[in-house]
Amino acid sequence: MAFKTRFVGGKDYQPLTEHSLRPFLDDLPDLRAGLGGPSAEWTVREVGDGNLNLVFIVKGPAGGFCVKQALPYVRLVGESWPLTLDRAHFEHEALKCQAAVVPHLVPTVHHFDRGRAALVMELLEPHIILRKGLIQGIVYPKIAEDIATFAAHTLFSTSDLAVGASVKKHAMAEFCFNTELCKITEDLVFTDPYQIAELNRWTSPQLDVIAAEFRADAPLKVAVQELKWAFLSRAEALLHGDLHTGSIMVTADDTRVIDPEFAFYGPMGFDIGAVMANFLLAYFAQDGLAVAQGERIAYQGWLLGTLESFWTVFEARFLELWRHRPEGDAFTIKLFTDDAGDRALEAFRHLTMARLLKDSVGFAGAKMVRRILGLAHVEDMEAIKDPDRRSVCERRALRLARELVVDASQINSIAELRVYAEEIRKR
Amino acid sequence: MAFKTRFVGGKDYQPLTEHSLRPFLDDLPDLRAGLGGPSAEWTVREVGDGNLNLVFIVKGPAGGFCVKQALPYVRLVGESWPLTLDRAHFEHEALKCQAAVVPHLVPTVHHFDRGRAALVMELLEPHIILRKGLIQGIVYPKIAEDIATFAAHTLFSTSDLAVGASVKKHAMAEFCFNTELCKITEDLVFTDPYQIAELNRWTSPQLDVIAAEFRADAPLKVAVQELKWAFLSRAEALLHGDLHTGSIMVTADDTRVIDPEFAFYGPMGFDIGAVMANFLLAYFAQDGLAVAQGERIAYQGWLLGTLESFWTVFEARFLELWRHRPEGDAFTIKLFTDDAGDRALEAFRHLTMARLLKDSVGFAGAKMVRRILGLAHVEDMEAIKDPDRRSVCERRALRLARELVVDASQINSIAELRVYAEEIRKR
Repeated sequence: MAFKTRFVGGKDYQPLTEHSLRPFLDDLPDLRAGLGGPSAEWTVREVGDGNLNLVFIVKGPAGGFCVKQALPYVRLVGESWPLTLDRAHFEHEALKCQAAVVPHLVPTVHHFDRGRAALVMELLEPHIILRKGLIQGIVYPKIAEDIATFAAHTLFSTSDLAVGASVKKHAMAEFCFNTELCKITEDLVFTDPYQIAELNRWTSPQLDVIAAEFRADAPLKVAVQELKWAFLSRAEALLHGDLHTGSIMVTADDTRVIDPEFAFYGPMGFDIGAVMANFLLAYFAQDGLAVAQGERIAYQGWLLGTLESFWTVFEARFLELWRHRPEGDAFTIKLFTDDAGDRALEAFRHLTMARLLKDSVGFAGAKMVRRILGLAHVEDMEAIKDPDRRSVCERRALRLARELVVDASQINSIAELRVYAEEIRKR
Repeated sequence: MAFKTRFVGGKDYQPLTEHSLRPFLDDLPDLRAGLGGPSAEWTVREVGDGNLNLVFIVKGPAGGFCVKQALPYVRLVGESWPLTLDRAHFEHEALKCQAAVVPHLVPTVHHFDRGRAALVMELLEPHIILRKGLIQGIVYPKIAEDIATFAAHTLFSTSDLAVGASVKKHAMAEFCFNTELCKITEDLVFTDPYQIAELNRWTSPQLDVIAAEFRADAPLKVAVQELKWAFLSRAEALLHGDLHTGSIMVTADDTRVIDPEFAFYGPMGFDIGAVMANFLLAYFAQDGLAVAQGERIAYQGWLLGTLESFWTVFEARFLELWRHRPEGDAFTIKLFTDDAGDRALEAFRHLTMARLLKDSVGFAGAKMVRRILGLAHVEDMEAIKDPDRRSVCERRALRLARELVVDASQINSIAELRVYAEEIRKR
């Protein structure tokens, strides 16, 4: 894997340290005021546990901020894998688009320094990463609705259904340069799990056989590469690009979607599928996470119910937006003002949703496979320490994932996806 | 219809005249040498008969050139419809991409002046516009193969099957700014023929009823807007964008595709469909163009045979390229090196061609409708002076077109398309 680094940060760039962060913020009056007191009293902590970046929490007498800085390489792998600093710019651009439609579901940006590749954002407290909550078995009553609202508004508002082609294409031109981040997805999601690749890992030897089966599974490889082609060519909307449960921070009554540095114009099903995949991985992981037999059964029901609600609410919101704000160049609304036109368009809206469900299900399958056989795993499974136990959960997830990728077109409703998952768990 | 003009030409720009063209070329040593002799001996003729631009033919003792200059408005409509001069830049960019793969099928560019929005190109003599040849009933034995080769190479080489995502997206970013030209297509092809629009015209009163039917035809409008959504969002390859028989210059043994100023990254079927539509329009027009009863029957057979060959050769060439130069990021070839992989990928290649045929057929229908009920008509039909006779031909074309747009998915082979056209002509 070779990546060309486009070093836009330039001369100002140095990785921030707990030491250098202080004068950086002290020079910015609004931020200094937000923290309060002399900078010597601020506490600074590096807390990044993601795969790519530095993340600092800074607190002062008056308040706190979160500072996220891109590193010129992939943190998970090290300096051997250089990566453009410009991802901070794309994250900032995406956050602006998202804040325009769902400001309550994203962190507020207080400052962006492109030279330093650093974003200063609202400190989300006492939020935790949703994935960690799901591992602990915490119920979040609002989560399905919040993620669905985020997805429906961000995808609709950047699609040809909502904006004129000129506005969309000008925005798209900028995101066409976020190719290094897209390349990570192209390789790690759609390619590497299906070949011998240095960075792949899996629970071994337990999953050696199924990993080899997947690498030899021609229909699976064709189907996953078909999804990759869609990822490469279908510019339907500005995607978050990495919408898993590790990119969502929560409390019982607040949800924020973070980390859109993988944003680009792509197929809407990729974002939806990422959400589905991560709820399904959480579902299969519960059997391994349970301390007492059966203690997570009810929670598994909640997880699948949340998956169902997520899609159902997404579909309803998206349709509502399409009906009431059809201001884009696709489906020019003035062609459909008579009764027959109105009915035909409404039928097509539902057909579009049915197609999007199938797309999403396919992408969900691809995202599940990569989390078990590829480089970047999920803590839901990693937290199951006993490899025998873990591999039972992982194998079930892989079996479902394979069917979703190959047979996505057979899934006609979200209820069918639920039943499918439940059946595979029982086998 | 409102268009924002992006005036890149700037201070240098003046529409060229037969007078001002002479010193412009005289200042360019290579062009001066190519023309030969003193510039006073050059002949300059403005010959533009297209919808948008000025076209000059300049000849000197040693040779000649064609000079194409964009006007800051749509020539067909006038200064009331301003249009970006930058289309000359996009035409130049597209010509470079095409020349990289099919240099023998495009005109050579000798000079590009972005400030003047002027391209100096090889003078194609004794070529004529293919459409004019088809009206005269001239057989071109190589035409199917040449256009098929042009389409296969230009579409394949700019798709994700042939180039890495980074290269493709960087090229795409530039063409994202060719929105004004795309907007013309979005409006004139996919929208205006289906509503009362000032610029629409048709053979009246003969086609008044069918025009009204089309405006009220909800399934047709949904299907055509679905095609528009694909046009807006599916960035499969760099399209010519206006690949009709008026954009092709021919002699008996030479073919050149000109005028790619509508170029952008879009669905491949749009270019293929444009070719199909224009051969089908030529086919239906022959009955009106015939002087003696039945004199064009054999020629109609040649036209449909050419349409069939065009697709057949296109499909074969495209498949050949995909098999032998699969250097893109879609369908990473190293995943398919075993026998099972190879077979599965080959099956998918054929599926892709079947899908592309359906896409193309749909776009062909849309392109036919717009040439009969919209602003820009084709000379094939316009040359039929008797409106009763013309409308018989046009009505047949419209009937086929409507079925192609609504039922494209029913067309499983190019032979079926041929039979469909023949049956509708006999009704």
